[in-house]
Amino acid sequence: MSTAEETGGENMPWGEVTPDAARRLLIAAVEAFAERGYHATTTRDIAGRAGMSPAALYIHYKTKEELLHKISTIGHTKALAILESAADGPGSAADRLVEAVRSFVVWHAGQATTARVVQYELDALGEEHRAEVVLLRRRCDAAVRRILSDGVDAGEFEVPDVSGTTLAVLSLCIDVARWFSLDGRWTPDEVGAMYADLVLRMVGAGAPGPQN
Amino acid sequence: MSTAEETGGENMPWGEVTPDAARRLLIAAVEAFAERGYHATTTRDIAGRAGMSPAALYIHYKTKEELLHKISTIGHTKALAILESAADGPGSAADRLVEAVRSFVVWHAGQATTARVVQYELDALGEEHRAEVVLLRRRCDAAVRRILSDGVDAGEFEVPDVSGTTLAVLSLCIDVARWFSLDGRWTPDEVGAMYADLVLRMVGAGAPGPQN
Repeated sequence: MSTAEETGGENMPWGEVTPDAARRLLIAAVEAFAERGYHATTTRDIAGRAGMSPAALYIHYKTKEELLHKISTIGHTKALAILESAADGPGSAADRLVEAVRSFVVWHAGQATTARVVQYELDALGEEHRAEVVLLRRRCDAAVRRILSDGVDAGEFEVPDVSGTTLAVLSLCIDVARWFSLDGRWTPDEVGAMYADLVLRMVGAGAPGPQN
Repeated sequence: MSTAEETGGENMPWGEVTPDAARRLLIAAVEAFAERGYHATTTRDIAGRAGMSPAALYIHYKTKEELLHKISTIGHTKALAILESAADGPGSAADRLVEAVRSFVVWHAGQATTARVVQYELDALGEEHRAEVVLLRRRCDAAVRRILSDGVDAGEFEVPDVSGTTLAVLSLCIDVARWFSLDGRWTPDEVGAMYADLVLRMVGAGAPGPQN
C-alpha cells in the first residue's frame, strides 16, 4: 500500500521529529519494517531508502532497535492522547465512547502502515523499551475502561465484563490497521462512524433489535 | 509464546501433512515465520529447526514461498470449514452466529502463532497463490454474511450495514490471534463465549441496555 498519505501532507505525523534527516530516517524505517519486517531490515536498507549513508544514520540512531523504539513510543503516545482526550471530553459516556472509537479508528485507518509496525513488532523491542511501551498500552486500556465504567455507573451502559469489553473495543479498532486500504470501499471516517455504532451496541447503548 | 500446544497433543493441527518430515518442516516454518517474520527466515533456518539438512528440506518444498503457501492454504481451509459448518448448522441465525464466533475465536486463540502467520504474511505470497487465498477469504466472508442476512430476513437481527458488520465480526475474531496468550486471564473458550455475546449485541440480538 502507498504510504504517501502518512508521510507527508497536512497531518505531518512525524512533525515532532527533528532535524529533518532524523525524520526522513524514521519514515524510511516505518516503510521498511512494514514491507519486510523488523528482523529482515538492516540499518543500511533504512539509510538507503532515506537517500543517506549508514554513517549519516548513525549520527541520529545508534541501533535499529532505537528506531523501532522511537516509532513505537511516538505511535503509542499518539494513541494514548486520542483515547485520553476522548475519555476526558464533554458529554455523556456514550458521547465519549463514540469519540474514542471514531478517532482511534480514523488514526488506525489513516496511519495503517505505522500502526501495523507499532502493533506487530512489540516483541522486537529491547526489554526496557518494551516495558515502557507496555505502560503506555495500559494507560490506553485504562482510558477506555474509564468511559465504560462511567457509563455503567450512570446507567447508560449494560456491560457484564468491563475488562473484557474494553479489550474487545480496542482490539476491534486496532485490527483496522490490518485490513484497511485507502483503495477500499470505505473512508477512514466512514469506518469510524460504523464502528462507533457497533461499539455502542456492544455496551448495550445502541439501537435495540426488533425483538427487544 | 510457547507453541507446544499447537504443534503436538491431541489436536494435531498439521495431521493432514505427510510424511512426518514434511510436517516437521511445516511446523518449524510456522515457528520461524512467527518469531522472525517471513523475509528474515531462510530455508536453512527452517531445516535447522526441524533438525534436518537444507537438502532434505528441498525434497519436500522447493522454495520458502511454497512452505508459506501450504501453511496459508491449510490455515484458511480450516477457518473456512469452521465458518461454513456454523453457517450450515442447525438452529436460528443467532444460534449459528454464536457457533461461528465461538469456534472461530477458539481457533484463533488456540492456534495463535499459526493464525498470525496466516493473517500477517499474506503479502509475501506469490501472485497466483495470493489469489487462491483471497478466494478462500471471500468464502469465509460469505459464510458470515449469509448468517447475518438470514437473521435480518427472519427479523432476528437489526443490521444497517451487513457487509460492514460482517467485516467487523471477522476482524474482532481474527485480532484474537494478536493479543491472546495462553498465560493470560482467559481461556480460549471464555473468550469465545464473551465474544459471541458481544457479537449478538452488535447485530441487535443481544441483551438490551437498561435504557431500551
